[in-house]
Amino acid sequence: MSSYVKIPSNLKPSDPQGSDLLAQERATVTFDVKELTLFLFGKKNLDRYHEILRIVENDPAFDKTNVYFMGRNELFKHAMKKEKRLAQLIKENKWKVEDIQFAEWLLDTPGPFGVHRGMFIPTLISQGTEEQKKEFLVPALKYKILGCYAQTELGHGSNVQGLETTATYISEADEFEIHSPYLTASKWWIGGLGKIANHAVVMAQLKSNGKPYGPHLFVVQVRDMETHQPLPDITIGDIGPKFGLNSTDNGFILFDRVRIPRSNMLSKFSQIKKGTGEYINPPNNKLLYGTMVLVRAIIISGVRFALERAVTIAIRYSAVRRQFVDKEEPKKLKDGRVVETIILDYTMQQYRLFPVIAQAYACFFTAKVMIDQYAEYTKQSSVGNYSLLTDLHASSSGLKSLTTTMAVDSIEECRRACGGHGYSSFSGFVKFYQNYLPNTTWEGDNFVLTQQTARHLFKTFRKMVLSKGAEAYPSQSERNQTMTYILQYLNDPNHTCTATTLLDFKNPELQLRAFGHRAAYLIANAVDQIDNQKSTWNSMLVEINRISRAHCQYLLVRNFINALQNSRQSEDEGLHMLRDNPSLKEVTLTICNLFVLHTMEKDLGDFMECGYLTPSQARLLRAQIYNLLKEIRPNAVGLVDAFLIPDFLLQSAIGRYDGKVYETMIDWASKEPLNGITLDVNPDSDVLIRNETDNKTKAKL
Amino acid sequence: MSSYVKIPSNLKPSDPQGSDLLAQERATVTFDVKELTLFLFGKKNLDRYHEILRIVENDPAFDKTNVYFMGRNELFKHAMKKEKRLAQLIKENKWKVEDIQFAEWLLDTPGPFGVHRGMFIPTLISQGTEEQKKEFLVPALKYKILGCYAQTELGHGSNVQGLETTATYISEADEFEIHSPYLTASKWWIGGLGKIANHAVVMAQLKSNGKPYGPHLFVVQVRDMETHQPLPDITIGDIGPKFGLNSTDNGFILFDRVRIPRSNMLSKFSQIKKGTGEYINPPNNKLLYGTMVLVRAIIISGVRFALERAVTIAIRYSAVRRQFVDKEEPKKLKDGRVVETIILDYTMQQYRLFPVIAQAYACFFTAKVMIDQYAEYTKQSSVGNYSLLTDLHASSSGLKSLTTTMAVDSIEECRRACGGHGYSSFSGFVKFYQNYLPNTTWEGDNFVLTQQTARHLFKTFRKMVLSKGAEAYPSQSERNQTMTYILQYLNDPNHTCTATTLLDFKNPELQLRAFGHRAAYLIANAVDQIDNQKSTWNSMLVEINRISRAHCQYLLVRNFINALQNSRQSEDEGLHMLRDNPSLKEVTLTICNLFVLHTMEKDLGDFMECGYLTPSQARLLRAQIYNLLKEIRPNAVGLVDAFLIPDFLLQSAIGRYDGKVYETMIDWASKEPLNGITLDVNPDSDVLIRNETDNKTKAKL
Repeated sequence: MSSYVKIPSNLKPSDPQGSDLLAQERATVTFDVKELTLFLFGKKNLDRYHEILRIVENDPAFDKTNVYFMGRNELFKHAMKKEKRLAQLIKENKWKVEDIQFAEWLLDTPGPFGVHRGMFIPTLISQGTEEQKKEFLVPALKYKILGCYAQTELGHGSNVQGLETTATYISEADEFEIHSPYLTASKWWIGGLGKIANHAVVMAQLKSNGKPYGPHLFVVQVRDMETHQPLPDITIGDIGPKFGLNSTDNGFILFDRVRIPRSNMLSKFSQIKKGTGEYINPPNNKLLYGTMVLVRAIIISGVRFALERAVTIAIRYSAVRRQFVDKEEPKKLKDGRVVETIILDYTMQQYRLFPVIAQAYACFFTAKVMIDQYAEYTKQSSVGNYSLLTDLHASSSGLKSLTTTMAVDSIEECRRACGGHGYSSFSGFVKFYQNYLPNTTWEGDNFVLTQQTARHLFKTFRKMVLSKGAEAYPSQSERNQTMTYILQYLNDPNHTCTATTLLDFKNPELQLRAFGHRAAYLIANAVDQIDNQKSTWNSMLVEINRISRAHCQYLLVRNFINALQNSRQSEDEGLHMLRDNPSLKEVTLTICNLFVLHTMEKDLGDFMECGYLTPSQARLLRAQIYNLLKEIRPNAVGLVDAFLIPDFLLQSAIGRYDGKVYETMIDWASKEPLNGITLDVNPDSDVLIRNETDNKTKAKL
Repeated sequence: MSSYVKIPSNLKPSDPQGSDLLAQERATVTFDVKELTLFLFGKKNLDRYHEILRIVENDPAFDKTNVYFMGRNELFKHAMKKEKRLAQLIKENKWKVEDIQFAEWLLDTPGPFGVHRGMFIPTLISQGTEEQKKEFLVPALKYKILGCYAQTELGHGSNVQGLETTATYISEADEFEIHSPYLTASKWWIGGLGKIANHAVVMAQLKSNGKPYGPHLFVVQVRDMETHQPLPDITIGDIGPKFGLNSTDNGFILFDRVRIPRSNMLSKFSQIKKGTGEYINPPNNKLLYGTMVLVRAIIISGVRFALERAVTIAIRYSAVRRQFVDKEEPKKLKDGRVVETIILDYTMQQYRLFPVIAQAYACFFTAKVMIDQYAEYTKQSSVGNYSLLTDLHASSSGLKSLTTTMAVDSIEECRRACGGHGYSSFSGFVKFYQNYLPNTTWEGDNFVLTQQTARHLFKTFRKMVLSKGAEAYPSQSERNQTMTYILQYLNDPNHTCTATTLLDFKNPELQLRAFGHRAAYLIANAVDQIDNQKSTWNSMLVEINRISRAHCQYLLVRNFINALQNSRQSEDEGLHMLRDNPSLKEVTLTICNLFVLHTMEKDLGDFMECGYLTPSQARLLRAQIYNLLKEIRPNAVGLVDAFLIPDFLLQSAIGRYDGKVYETMIDWASKEPLNGITLDVNPDSDVLIRNETDNKTKAKL
């Protein structure tokens, strides 16, 4: 893309140069950055990742040069171009699900095929019969059928049971009538529907013989295969502009008594019998919950990548940006000149940014554990043992809530830590934040979700209290992560923190005990209020949110600590590496301590309210956090380099690997299309904006 | 604007209707909404406000119908149209500064003339000589000169002393040479410069006879008055897209040894003598600080309006939106049908939203106090007494930081509390949030600012400790708000909370004491660390931020409590009303209590760490907050109605006064321009987007 403004070529940024500053930072790193990257990705994944990056970053279809300048229509066009090329590459290179995930992450352009691949096809696979797969899945895999997943309605999001769209079985015709009885029944937010999809999986209230059977899934053709126009009695549109994701076509759809064959009800688990309209029950819904656990593990893994991306930009820019001379500790160049202090040397900046690095690691380890637990559950469930599911499902609900809220807050914290330039699209934060934001709402609203977590914790607690003294519950084999800390609490409810020195706060047992004790205390109190003081569920919702948060912070802390402690015995490739590499082990341990203590400090009130921490211990805790910041400082740039977020993804003038912040800012600004437009700014007329090539109107004032 | 999609006209939302639900809410309000509005605005302002609203909401130049669909160029064109019409209206109606503020707020379209009117002209007035006013101000007032204020640079924001642009006096020519020696010296973020301004006030490092005199202001013509092209040796451009404010043209500018006459240095306070190049010192800089206090009072007043706007949308939509049936307390229609619970009935939603109402009131009272204090300072300074200034300046710095961060967080909390629809531009949150966001960074970065507050608090504390036992300091007449709580602390550093019941937490003395004690405790500790343990300033930055926050929360609490307590004696028109209206007094008292206790709870760790609150008191505090939410519930919609934020400003489908949420969502969606475009979605070619009128290409799949 060409520049509209010629920038004088003789000018460079004032010294020291960004690239020199980053080189300096890279020289102080105490560990091997490549080794840490290998630890984070694993050999196999890292190779795949390099291969996919090589393919996509050089493909002209994926060129991102103009993306910050695009309006909605252009963005959508850009996304469609990406979708088509990606579909080709997937076919040519025989990419698997993980490969596609890498590619989508790198391309960073949510488009209309996302739901087709991520929801429509998987739903056909998991909910369709063999005949249905032949009819819909085979053409869908060839992109002949383009599908979407139509669940949310204008009036209903969280409450699926309350959906208003109906699917009534008409026995005479052996068809379903799909109908939107109210305006609020309009399907809404449906990704890929606005412009692209010709088929939809529609969630609708099944009715047969006058009886309601709740929400079920139906495949409905929505657009003509030739003309691409909406079919008769169907109203479709794009729902309009959004905070982000404007490269995709979220749509709405209304059905006016639209008939579909009976065979379009996805019938792997439940169905309506021909003619009689008899309803066949699904066997059990455990499978569905299992999938939700996996989806949430993937979201938490996504949190890790989002945090890494944000903090990479903020740390690198903070190592290049200088502001104010610190009179007490002035920085000098080699030639003795005093220069302004690097922003990253300010403790406040460290306090804002280093915990974000630590959060990324915490999510890395927890996502790992969740995927392992899911695998274990899948193994056990194949022989009919579903005992792991409820705890897994409850924990994954709360973890999705806690970590995605944390991610959004931390991305924004990183952005604000970049001062004015954080507000420019060229920072790489703007589109990124805007597109990430819905994670707090979709796949379960972050507040509603916490009720699922707390409900399970209350049940577990009650069961354990009841069995006390009687037959031991849980038995060793049944005992899970949750029960462990509840048991500790029940055995010693008045336990207090034993720390007397700064160093004590680095003790992993003390750390774990703190988080377990606080969570169990909150659960015990809430159960008392509900069971003994007859508090309603609604009156407890604020407490319920606190409890889910406390429980899930315990899990993040436990998974982090366990991974580092178990590295000695583990067979795991990555943990193995930690054992053999003392400098890696040391830096990850420092990060673990920062995560634990910073998380504790942010909720200090909780830890003091339950009587665990005293005021003087709280002060020790803070002092230890400040020490940890100092320990991390020389490794800060190395730690974010190790995340290996490529410039192709960052699209950030300020977070570039090479530190050429200011050169890039001004180069990109010169390409702003508004700079190519000549104005008539005559104050007596409405402003006219004419293209530069249109020379009829000269600017007048 | 016409619809691209025809929505079936027979459909309406499912019952109960939004308008009925809001009517129901309005029937439960315990106070006179109009009276509360009158209290908030005052009679005179309210009349002006109604008059200005009437004028602007019916003017076609200010039509907002399409604004959510506009790309950057269109938005800019829209803003220019608004600027020109507004300039006419100001002239025709002889609007004063306050009237223009009302109009700008209602029009909600930041444009290129904003800085011309808000910075360029005021700077000429305050810093220019009479001759300079004749030369620049007179044509500027007629919009012949269009100006901007060029201070921030690519490499420098917060640190004005570090700016790199130079203004060197060339005695032979009696001129200044304005020069950008580095790329980082490029002026950046300059509102109005990108496309519109032909003049700039430039902040540059003054040099004369080889000596540096620090940053000073110079008027520089930057574009040709006829052709509107940049003048020779000047490079100008727009800096490109941003998170928000894309309706304005933030620009950059580089000077390559550009000469201006000596008389272009703004010389009311300091100047360079002709020929000799001798520098004349400014008398004192107190005036500048005084203006900053006023600017910050206006920002805090703006926080109030931003919070009101956000919470109006969220509360109204929460009163219309229903989700899930509460099995313990099911809601029924008059005909006995069970319906889903109104979102606003969930305690979690109340806990998220009601404190935002309270924050708006807190900012209302504090802005009022700041403006009064500024007036008092102006009075005293006119007779040479500047003693009020340092405390005022320090407090206003911290208050700007605390309240704008609070505003941004609360707007986003309100947005998320609206579920999925909060993410749609039609919610009215998206552009609003994006445009409000830079308040955390500009006019002093919110983290950097807190150092000014803490530095003053430390000085005050040291002075008071030193004078203890000796001559009493401060004397009664010198004593200010800060000294009062420090004195209390010094007299009784081990004071603890005396509350034993829920009700005790409503005691205003107890509340004030809590906030004062906690702030003084933090100050005392920090001073000890700096003075006795020789901690560096940099190592204290996190604590410094906590201290500023604690101090400013004290101020917000104190100003709120004082206003309600003093209403009995006050001459103030508004407080007068409170005295005579028990129902108003009651509802404002409830809101005050919620603000105080919710603020305390959010920082509970602080109040426990300083030993003020015990764990059992913390539990009482929480219980009292839950009670207050219940008290406020019937008045929630009335309270936001009283803010009188018109639909014209809200531009919100979900926050409309009439509750027609779903009808509006779908009506606006039908107007999305993407819906007017026909696609060629042939997967074998790049996607083409053609206008509907272009029928050559039929959609193919």
